[in-house]
Amino acid sequence: MNRVLVLRILGILLAFLAAVLLAPIPFSLYFADGAWPSFLLSSLICAALGGVLILKCRSPREMAVRDGFAVVTFGWTAFALFGALPYLLSGSIPSVLDALFETMSGFTTTGATILPDIEALAPSILFWRALTQWLGGMGFIVLSLAILPMLGVGGMQMFKAEMPGPTADRLKPRIQDTAKLLWGVYVLLTSAQTLLLMLGGLSFFDALCHAFTTLASGGFSPKNASVGAYDSAYVDWVIILFMFLAAVNFALHYQVLRGRGREMWRNEEFRVFLGLTLVIIVLVMWANQGAVYTSLSDNLRYSTFQVVSIFSTTGYATADYGMWPAMSQYLLFLAMLVGGCAASTAGGMKVARLLLLIKHAQVQIYRLIHPRAVRLVKLGDVPVDREIMQSILGFFALWMAIFMVATILMASTGLDMVSAAGSVVATLAVIGPGFGSVGPMENYAHILPFGKSVLVVCMLLGRLELFTVLVLFFPTFWRK
Amino acid sequence: MNRVLVLRILGILLAFLAAVLLAPIPFSLYFADGAWPSFLLSSLICAALGGVLILKCRSPREMAVRDGFAVVTFGWTAFALFGALPYLLSGSIPSVLDALFETMSGFTTTGATILPDIEALAPSILFWRALTQWLGGMGFIVLSLAILPMLGVGGMQMFKAEMPGPTADRLKPRIQDTAKLLWGVYVLLTSAQTLLLMLGGLSFFDALCHAFTTLASGGFSPKNASVGAYDSAYVDWVIILFMFLAAVNFALHYQVLRGRGREMWRNEEFRVFLGLTLVIIVLVMWANQGAVYTSLSDNLRYSTFQVVSIFSTTGYATADYGMWPAMSQYLLFLAMLVGGCAASTAGGMKVARLLLLIKHAQVQIYRLIHPRAVRLVKLGDVPVDREIMQSILGFFALWMAIFMVATILMASTGLDMVSAAGSVVATLAVIGPGFGSVGPMENYAHILPFGKSVLVVCMLLGRLELFTVLVLFFPTFWRK
Ligand SMILES: [K+]
Ligand SMILES: [K+]
Repeated sequence: MNRVLVLRILGILLAFLAAVLLAPIPFSLYFADGAWPSFLLSSLICAALGGVLILKCRSPREMAVRDGFAVVTFGWTAFALFGALPYLLSGSIPSVLDALFETMSGFTTTGATILPDIEALAPSILFWRALTQWLGGMGFIVLSLAILPMLGVGGMQMFKAEMPGPTADRLKPRIQDTAKLLWGVYVLLTSAQTLLLMLGGLSFFDALCHAFTTLASGGFSPKNASVGAYDSAYVDWVIILFMFLAAVNFALHYQVLRGRGREMWRNEEFRVFLGLTLVIIVLVMWANQGAVYTSLSDNLRYSTFQVVSIFSTTGYATADYGMWPAMSQYLLFLAMLVGGCAASTAGGMKVARLLLLIKHAQVQIYRLIHPRAVRLVKLGDVPVDREIMQSILGFFALWMAIFMVATILMASTGLDMVSAAGSVVATLAVIGPGFGSVGPMENYAHILPFGKSVLVVCMLLGRLELFTVLVLFFPTFWRK
Repeated sequence: MNRVLVLRILGILLAFLAAVLLAPIPFSLYFADGAWPSFLLSSLICAALGGVLILKCRSPREMAVRDGFAVVTFGWTAFALFGALPYLLSGSIPSVLDALFETMSGFTTTGATILPDIEALAPSILFWRALTQWLGGMGFIVLSLAILPMLGVGGMQMFKAEMPGPTADRLKPRIQDTAKLLWGVYVLLTSAQTLLLMLGGLSFFDALCHAFTTLASGGFSPKNASVGAYDSAYVDWVIILFMFLAAVNFALHYQVLRGRGREMWRNEEFRVFLGLTLVIIVLVMWANQGAVYTSLSDNLRYSTFQVVSIFSTTGYATADYGMWPAMSQYLLFLAMLVGGCAASTAGGMKVARLLLLIKHAQVQIYRLIHPRAVRLVKLGDVPVDREIMQSILGFFALWMAIFMVATILMASTGLDMVSAAGSVVATLAVIGPGFGSVGPMENYAHILPFGKSVLVVCMLLGRLELFTVLVLFFPTFWRK
């Protein structure tokens, strides 16, 4: 690994963080919440450290693929560490671990919170909380469409096909081009949602915070009661639409904006995601009708909201699904595992991987019946390379193994069975709310420090598609 | 598929069943429990139907590999159907579905019971119940060492390596040779355990029933309180030893009996199984100490018994692990998923597959760091063929998918979250007792008919390594 170059890039990232830490200051001044000095000081600390790194670390060499792992993992970690400064300096979150948890939950777009009373915080702090998610979401799209495919992580090579642009071997040109295009799509969708929410009666501040955390599939709401606080069917449906869109491959959005709407429909992952969403909504409504909701229209509205919120791994709530029948909760659990589409801001394992796992199993069965037949797994019309299939299968096995081990660790802190598994799936799949004592109407304040640390690692592992983080734990990674 | 030949073999299997249905009659006469006419009548029915099939169905063709799937799946199903006759005819279990559940639970060596009061049954019926497991266990060893590898199911080709004997392409000679050798090992171990249990004060009847259901990793006990009824440390430790042995590859036992004891230690799967057993025992003891047991010796005895009972997928109980801390329960849950060694009578996914999944993930990570390096997954010194690795990965993905879908189905019958997942893992991994309302001190009587049907299918799927059953649902299987 080229340590000097990695440190230099971390310096650049810190300088960028220093700049965005200034963004909440206008809100602080407007609302006169007195939190602006914390942001200024945080920004200065990041600028100073970033400046030192940029000046001191100069490397003549180009960035190698292997350095990418270190940059991504340490970059996200640095953002979580230094992004926590405003919480600490303003006294909004006094504990360092809690502040780190909240910031990691932000930049990974998880949305799990340790705050029992969100509305007690200064508006500019709430804006920062939403902004961490928005930045994290943008970061993840670029990561999954431009960086991970190049690193060869978890079969992500499969899902960049739709993206135009140069395909040079080096990271730089492609990242910059891709980032610019997608940044445009992301900003456009965020603006549209902000506008539509304002038409529904939300203040600019509320609308913007919700648009930030919807497009990021984040789920941090500035309200204690989440989206339920507005008690508006219009707001619910607008957010349902944008939660769904945020969980769709952003390369497809780009195609649609270029007038190639048919590309979206031709995309197999999108069709399966849409179909699965509808099926799960119907099944949840079937289980909830009578048991939770007597009116069909209430059932439609609240069940749809919760299914889309969970399937897109956003994590907003308008209902306490912890009180729903076990069948509904397991359907939501399944949706959590699957997550949205690849190259969206959603977490989980991604619909495309699920689809390929099912097709792989089908091919396996077919080959038992016809041992001499050759049949390839395909996504759309594209045959899936053996290597890619292997890494997707490896990803799935590793995901399950980490899920199991982390659940045992969480249970060791004294959580009950449902809450232990619920907290792990909620963080590893970057959902936010889980089941049991970390359900949609609860928070993570009561988790013991060891448990919070485990969940912080789960968020990072989940958001960076496991492998990006795990390679760093192999001694061979550090050898020249 | 060669339907005539498959029907003929089913006829032979029914004739065999007719013979073994006579075995409980001496016990019935000895205990004068009056159940012998049910066995005689059941035997006659099987003999008649079997005879007709043997006489009417004659095929000049040899058995093809594809026919093997149908023989295995329909054979096991026929045993479960016709083996239920004594329960029904004697009135011990009046409901057809319940009798089928109990018999399927027997022949698949699951050990889940719908009987709230086991001791109320006639001794000869209890003997039959234990015998179904013993036969099922023997059947499964032959299946996994001789038949599944030939069918190419779930990478089972990997685990037959240690077995001597001809390697002809056709099923017949190999099955017969393998069966004879293993039958000897199985009978020997069963006799040894029966003797040791009788030395501990058990009656011949109790000792034999427990030896039958231990060696089969079955777990049907003729006592309501399972092995806990004897309240004897000696009995507990004897059963712990034989539960462990039953979960070890029987080809290794054969080698040990031939004086090649080193083969067992050289076997990587065995070493990992032993190591994992010890690690899980220590972790469970750590969680249970103070919380469940105050004395270390009690903790050692009961925790070890339960861990080995669950890890070997036997399912006997001397303690209500449903009252243990969530961490202990999740460790048992993990042990359930993994199961014992391949080619033993244990269920679950098998230690060897887990081991290969972990090695596969390691290789994946290694290849991210060294993209041009070639590194193969190995078990012991043997490199694992790509195709076999693919089918093991496919097996794992399919196992998880079936687990998820079946859990949702069980939740739809109104079970709580823990019981829904608990009942599925208990049957799919052929354990017997699960979690929640199907825990070790409970039974399956309260499950609704739809739920019982789902679990019957799970037992069959789990015991026959998924693929053997699933191929029959592919239309292409039935085409000429
Ligand atoms: K989220
Ligand atoms: K069992």
